[in-house]
Amino acid sequence: MIDDYFVAVRKDLRDQQGGGKFLGMVFKDRTGEIGGILWNNAVAVARQFELGDVVSVRGTVSSYQGRLQIRVERVLPLRDGEYNLDDLAAAPENTAEYLAELRSLIETIQEPHLAELCRSFLSDEGFIARFSSAAAGKKWHHAFPGGLVAHCVEMARLAIASCEIFEGVDRDLLLAGVLLHDIGKLDELSQGLMVDYTTRGKLLGHLHMGIDMVQERINQIAGFPDGLRLELLHCLLAHHGSLENGSPVVPKSTEALVLYHIDDLSAQVNAFSRIIAETRDRGESWSDYVPLIERQVWTKGH
Amino acid sequence: MIDDYFVAVRKDLRDQQGGGKFLGMVFKDRTGEIGGILWNNAVAVARQFELGDVVSVRGTVSSYQGRLQIRVERVLPLRDGEYNLDDLAAAPENTAEYLAELRSLIETIQEPHLAELCRSFLSDEGFIARFSSAAAGKKWHHAFPGGLVAHCVEMARLAIASCEIFEGVDRDLLLAGVLLHDIGKLDELSQGLMVDYTTRGKLLGHLHMGIDMVQERINQIAGFPDGLRLELLHCLLAHHGSLENGSPVVPKSTEALVLYHIDDLSAQVNAFSRIIAETRDRGESWSDYVPLIERQVWTKGH
Amino acid sequence: MIDDYFVAVRKDLRDQQGGGKFLGMVFKDRTGEIGGILWNNAVAVARQFELGDVVSVRGTVSSYQGRLQIRVERVLPLRDGEYNLDDLAAAPENTAEYLAELRSLIETIQEPHLAELCRSFLSDEGFIARFSSAAAGKKWHHAFPGGLVAHCVEMARLAIASCEIFEGVDRDLLLAGVLLHDIGKLDELSQGLMVDYTTRGKLLGHLHMGIDMVQERINQIAGFPDGLRLELLHCLLAHHGSLENGSPVVPKSTEALVLYHIDDLSAQVNAFSRIIAETRDRGESWSDYVPLIERQVWTKGH
Amino acid sequence: MIDDYFVAVRKDLRDQQGGGKFLGMVFKDRTGEIGGILWNNAVAVARQFELGDVVSVRGTVSSYQGRLQIRVERVLPLRDGEYNLDDLAAAPENTAEYLAELRSLIETIQEPHLAELCRSFLSDEGFIARFSSAAAGKKWHHAFPGGLVAHCVEMARLAIASCEIFEGVDRDLLLAGVLLHDIGKLDELSQGLMVDYTTRGKLLGHLHMGIDMVQERINQIAGFPDGLRLELLHCLLAHHGSLENGSPVVPKSTEALVLYHIDDLSAQVNAFSRIIAETRDRGESWSDYVPLIERQVWTKGH
Amino acid sequence: MIDDYFVAVRKDLRDQQGGGKFLGMVFKDRTGEIGGILWNNAVAVARQFELGDVVSVRGTVSSYQGRLQIRVERVLPLRDGEYNLDDLAAAPENTAEYLAELRSLIETIQEPHLAELCRSFLSDEGFIARFSSAAAGKKWHHAFPGGLVAHCVEMARLAIASCEIFEGVDRDLLLAGVLLHDIGKLDELSQGLMVDYTTRGKLLGHLHMGIDMVQERINQIAGFPDGLRLELLHCLLAHHGSLENGSPVVPKSTEALVLYHIDDLSAQVNAFSRIIAETRDRGESWSDYVPLIERQVWTKGH
Amino acid sequence: MIDDYFVAVRKDLRDQQGGGKFLGMVFKDRTGEIGGILWNNAVAVARQFELGDVVSVRGTVSSYQGRLQIRVERVLPLRDGEYNLDDLAAAPENTAEYLAELRSLIETIQEPHLAELCRSFLSDEGFIARFSSAAAGKKWHHAFPGGLVAHCVEMARLAIASCEIFEGVDRDLLLAGVLLHDIGKLDELSQGLMVDYTTRGKLLGHLHMGIDMVQERINQIAGFPDGLRLELLHCLLAHHGSLENGSPVVPKSTEALVLYHIDDLSAQVNAFSRIIAETRDRGESWSDYVPLIERQVWTKGH
Repeated sequence: MIDDYFVAVRKDLRDQQGGGKFLGMVFKDRTGEIGGILWNNAVAVARQFELGDVVSVRGTVSSYQGRLQIRVERVLPLRDGEYNLDDLAAAPENTAEYLAELRSLIETIQEPHLAELCRSFLSDEGFIARFSSAAAGKKWHHAFPGGLVAHCVEMARLAIASCEIFEGVDRDLLLAGVLLHDIGKLDELSQGLMVDYTTRGKLLGHLHMGIDMVQERINQIAGFPDGLRLELLHCLLAHHGSLENGSPVVPKSTEALVLYHIDDLSAQVNAFSRIIAETRDRGESWSDYVPLIERQVWTKGH
Repeated sequence: MIDDYFVAVRKDLRDQQGGGKFLGMVFKDRTGEIGGILWNNAVAVARQFELGDVVSVRGTVSSYQGRLQIRVERVLPLRDGEYNLDDLAAAPENTAEYLAELRSLIETIQEPHLAELCRSFLSDEGFIARFSSAAAGKKWHHAFPGGLVAHCVEMARLAIASCEIFEGVDRDLLLAGVLLHDIGKLDELSQGLMVDYTTRGKLLGHLHMGIDMVQERINQIAGFPDGLRLELLHCLLAHHGSLENGSPVVPKSTEALVLYHIDDLSAQVNAFSRIIAETRDRGESWSDYVPLIERQVWTKGH
Repeated sequence: MIDDYFVAVRKDLRDQQGGGKFLGMVFKDRTGEIGGILWNNAVAVARQFELGDVVSVRGTVSSYQGRLQIRVERVLPLRDGEYNLDDLAAAPENTAEYLAELRSLIETIQEPHLAELCRSFLSDEGFIARFSSAAAGKKWHHAFPGGLVAHCVEMARLAIASCEIFEGVDRDLLLAGVLLHDIGKLDELSQGLMVDYTTRGKLLGHLHMGIDMVQERINQIAGFPDGLRLELLHCLLAHHGSLENGSPVVPKSTEALVLYHIDDLSAQVNAFSRIIAETRDRGESWSDYVPLIERQVWTKGH
Repeated sequence: MIDDYFVAVRKDLRDQQGGGKFLGMVFKDRTGEIGGILWNNAVAVARQFELGDVVSVRGTVSSYQGRLQIRVERVLPLRDGEYNLDDLAAAPENTAEYLAELRSLIETIQEPHLAELCRSFLSDEGFIARFSSAAAGKKWHHAFPGGLVAHCVEMARLAIASCEIFEGVDRDLLLAGVLLHDIGKLDELSQGLMVDYTTRGKLLGHLHMGIDMVQERINQIAGFPDGLRLELLHCLLAHHGSLENGSPVVPKSTEALVLYHIDDLSAQVNAFSRIIAETRDRGESWSDYVPLIERQVWTKGH
Repeated sequence: MIDDYFVAVRKDLRDQQGGGKFLGMVFKDRTGEIGGILWNNAVAVARQFELGDVVSVRGTVSSYQGRLQIRVERVLPLRDGEYNLDDLAAAPENTAEYLAELRSLIETIQEPHLAELCRSFLSDEGFIARFSSAAAGKKWHHAFPGGLVAHCVEMARLAIASCEIFEGVDRDLLLAGVLLHDIGKLDELSQGLMVDYTTRGKLLGHLHMGIDMVQERINQIAGFPDGLRLELLHCLLAHHGSLENGSPVVPKSTEALVLYHIDDLSAQVNAFSRIIAETRDRGESWSDYVPLIERQVWTKGH
Repeated sequence: MIDDYFVAVRKDLRDQQGGGKFLGMVFKDRTGEIGGILWNNAVAVARQFELGDVVSVRGTVSSYQGRLQIRVERVLPLRDGEYNLDDLAAAPENTAEYLAELRSLIETIQEPHLAELCRSFLSDEGFIARFSSAAAGKKWHHAFPGGLVAHCVEMARLAIASCEIFEGVDRDLLLAGVLLHDIGKLDELSQGLMVDYTTRGKLLGHLHMGIDMVQERINQIAGFPDGLRLELLHCLLAHHGSLENGSPVVPKSTEALVLYHIDDLSAQVNAFSRIIAETRDRGESWSDYVPLIERQVWTKGH
């Protein structure tokens, strides 16, 4: 018997063989996910909560093939205050520090228009509230509240190192690109307890959405040079590196090239770190096969 | 000996072996292209004209491997009035008619916001002047002044046929998509005597540029519904059909799917028609191998 | 407890751990599919019915992870008359009307040999009986009895529209291509209650099988011009558009190109429509992820 | 000054800049190819010979970038008897022996229907005349008169070895597949002094053309079993091994699999041998880069 | 109730919903695999055996969706002598004969250095013990003890046939390549009751590991010619045929090309044979869909 | 008339039409390349010099289509001292400084075995002489004497930055990987005045060749841990990142992943820098189309 609360992340009404419906669900808390099934009164119950709601679930747990599910007797939405957020999602760690570091790195931008553009975001409290609690993704990398800031800090440090190592890279442009490259994810993903793609996100993608946000701010900055706008927009549009990865143009300037590479490096290393941590938790030295990168990852436990 | 005028479409200063520079050029008129080379005073001469200028060329023609070139003695830019445009580029045919038909088809849009959006373009004389003289491409399909209008008319007719044949396709949305899908090409291509990609075009691409133009107009229409804006922008962003072809999102609505297909059909049929016409002109029944589509095209002359 | 009839669409004898066999089955009726398992006397029972048979099934239903299965106690084949076809498969709708329209469109073919070729099919009652009840596919598009006719009507309308829109497309050839392009599916698929690929279909494919049927008829038409035969066969062989999609030659004539495009357009729009309808039935605005097209489809419910 | 005869393998009328046409040509004899250009009276001269004709050419040779061309003064077709075939193409070597071996291997087929089918080809003098002088390709492998027989003999030997090495391969079926797999090339290629794809070949491909020839013969053999026909046709249709390589179905039986592999092995080894021989002739130990296989080939001269 | 012994091939500790762990396992014997689950005392039990151990298992069998699992009550490792190997894995057949044949074929190598190199392996009892009991793979082809020898014999026969059929192939080099091409698999795979990739195998791959073994032996042979070493190493490195398949260089000599082809042929035919045998065992004429080769395989039972 | 010296980088004996041979050549000095052709006595002349020789060339320069060639009258090899190296190739810049920095970074490695391994290379004067004058490639990136050191320094800096930014990356392992990843290029490329792939390089590739060099040194270090050797070899084998790019295994540890990324970043940025510099030299703001990366590169000159 179980009586606990979760975030509801999936809810499917399906036909029963003999007529009527049953309700399949997936619940999530900070320890993982579990399936649930409810047989009686499924249509009515399904109306009582939405995906992303925190729900109280009572039922019995059974298992098959090593996976567990709850035979649900009752599922009810809770209100704020009836649950403890920390039970449901890993609390962001260090986000305040990371945000402070990101601010201080961005503030080293010299070019006045880029500096003003970045400031217009960083001084916008509403933006910062959303930015600092956002995940950079649904699952793959930096997929936790605060993940987007952590990702940007890593990239900003890599950007600064790159400018010291390579000649002829425009540091200001690159740093502005780092701050702004993924801000479309604030709207592409639902960014709450259940991070998932929004309808707008699926239809437009974060490249377009982010550029829209940037252009709106640029339009309010008097005298923002056309050439500079072009350079920046190109970096943002090209930061996925190739058409196959969803950029409508490939990097054609050095800054666009570097931005793509440091984004990829930060994302891949973070994904490896997460996979290695999960694998070690299971006491293994090799991860399960990871379809996205078509390999198992090694923890180096010999 | 030749003494004629052309559009200058290529101009390369290169090192001579023994020091100094020579100037390689390509000239174009309505009959085709020819290379040119100039040995004396190359740096100074190169400064006297820009790509896209109409130039007077004097020199002697020689050939090798069946290709001709001019050993140039003199090349000078001409001013308007010193040449006849019809010698330089095929005059647009039927563009006025096509434009009228396109207008009348677009005017059948019922949804008031889409209708107003389209009207705001079609009633803008500056836009119409550029739109009606634009090519839809540099070489492949509808690559002539007026080609963009011709392409849109074909698509509008296909759109209307599709709405009659398939249930559940939103005719108004599809027609608006037809009118607006390629307007970014007005800026992506130089659209003059020498149609080539502009710097902005290479860095941003016509998808982004066109959407920018559309959003600017939508923002001036009071009460334009958010959902409708989303549907339209998705159609425009997805009209290349796949990431590989440069759309950052793939078609996810029926209208986006149909828009992509009728764009492709119009483009491919036009390209085949051009290739077949060129092949017949040469008295052949099979075209040369066309790398872009990896085949020879057949004129059906058995 | 369940006691109902179904089409048997899968039947697997598998080893029991302790020796002996058990029988896994899948049953289907017009509402969907359900798995079944039978423990006793499995080998003997498996001999009593074939895939595609209508069978009476008695047993108890249980579920796991939201999927149902029948613990089967008895399964027996039924004879015609012991069941109602409408319970097992969605009845074809409008097929008679669609067939009539297709006939009338095909009858507009002027070229006498193509006209005679098409007539030889359309006046063959045996052919028509099979053609009019055939599905165009197993699952993806027009996958219901009468689906092939519906698909051909859509294409015929698109063909006629295309001939009006594009110059230089041979209307007669294109319409003949529409009628004949998929007739190999009559034998490639089992086309009964259980539509599945036949052994011949898997080994030869509907392109080859259809062309065989066409050549047989052409051979009976005196004076069918060689060039015309070549044009038609090319359209049929190339109608999948690329080697990767199973055409041994790519479209090299305008008619082959158009035939490929309108086939694809009709198929994709139909598949989207089916997915959208299924998604709305489930009360969702986004379909499940569709692996074949690597995306979710949007119903436009905002 | 040159005055010699060649096969004319290319003939292009092109526009001269100042009006009129010139004629670009390519000529070939057993030592290789050379370009030619003719300035005067080009249209009339172009009418006097066809591609594939043996022509007498008079002119002066010049060069550029290490390639030669003839400035042609006169080009005239010759009649049989006015030239020596051995000057124009490498004479087939050993074809009679190879054909005898192929016959004797095919005659070991036991299955009576397959034996009769093969006999119907091998006893057809017209077929043998064409078969024994055919090339297996335009350039890549066994691209010389008699090449098709040489290719089939290599494959027959590999087939027999494979049947001894692997259990469960149907020797008769495989040998019949070897004899018949490429007979469509008799019509796909022009198979004369100038081997090039025919119009039928480009539109239908040798898979379809060969199968047509096979089916016609099978239809004349009483009692040819349906299953056997299916097995054979599958082998023939699948012998390119994958859709990308132009087979509309992939190998699904062991014989089809083996046929594909031994075809590929014979072709690749022959191509390597030719490349190695050409490279050694030039005194090199590494061939030029070969785009088709994306590598240089090594002669093993260290 | 079941009480039997198996090889343990999977062992996963997972979190129970209410805290604590459960243990998911997979067991294997010569008849196949079965899952197991253990609820009590999972952490302690998991420590008592390793993957690859032979274990005694007691529990109750249940099923769902046609798949079985054991609810495990007790699982204990056994010692040698407490079980019969023949119950756990198919005994190698004919390996002694195959090995003798392989030896005799390899002994026909004339080139003294290659002969000595091969002898140094074949006369090494430790090597032979491991080589003769190795599988050539985990699942796909020759995946049984002795499979590697069987694979090499097939290839040696094909190599000899190829040298008779094709001119200019170095028989000694090719035979040495056959013997040595896959010896890295002795360490890449665990090669016991549970054949799986080792950590070294996953990190280095059998190409590198095998070449290392070969180089070590070559270094002990006085006067082994540099050029010959290069030829041999190239054959070994290139034997997967393409970069995509894991060779860091593509075949550039004829021997490397032939080695790749006969390896592939032997592997594919063996995989087909296995699939066909399994399919016939199930009484079917078509295999299940095989994702690796993207097709169903046909047994030719019509 | 020209009378100058060059490196001979290409030398092709080709057939003259009328019998005899001519000699096509390519010559190179620090300003670029030029073709040459010699008509008389070609076979004898071709024997007098080898590729890579510095040769004195006398002849007359002509041009076609903007490309120059020398009609060569005399070509003779020179001896050391008869020419000035600086005329033939850009002198390495800063290599001594870069080498010193690389040494000092590598000397920070703490792990004693890795430290000793690196020291064994860096203290080997013969190695250092070759290493410090090597190019990292033939054309694409760091393709100049000293380029390999410059590339390794960039990577070492990126490695150190990465270790500061990302947790859990083994700094010693990564730095050793940086030093050793490309040392195979010392033998893969001819590394003299004419950098080209050697026969060994083409047959084995620099991955294998470098690993061989590393293993030889590891074998001389007492007590080098097996696990560490495995980690290092994996980094080296996997540093191309994917099978398609020539690594036989993909990166499976974090260090291998980071090594791949920083190698790629250094290479791409260097290639962009070279292309941008060349483009600016020509007075252009867009490079020519670069096939390897399928794009034009932008210099940001608006």
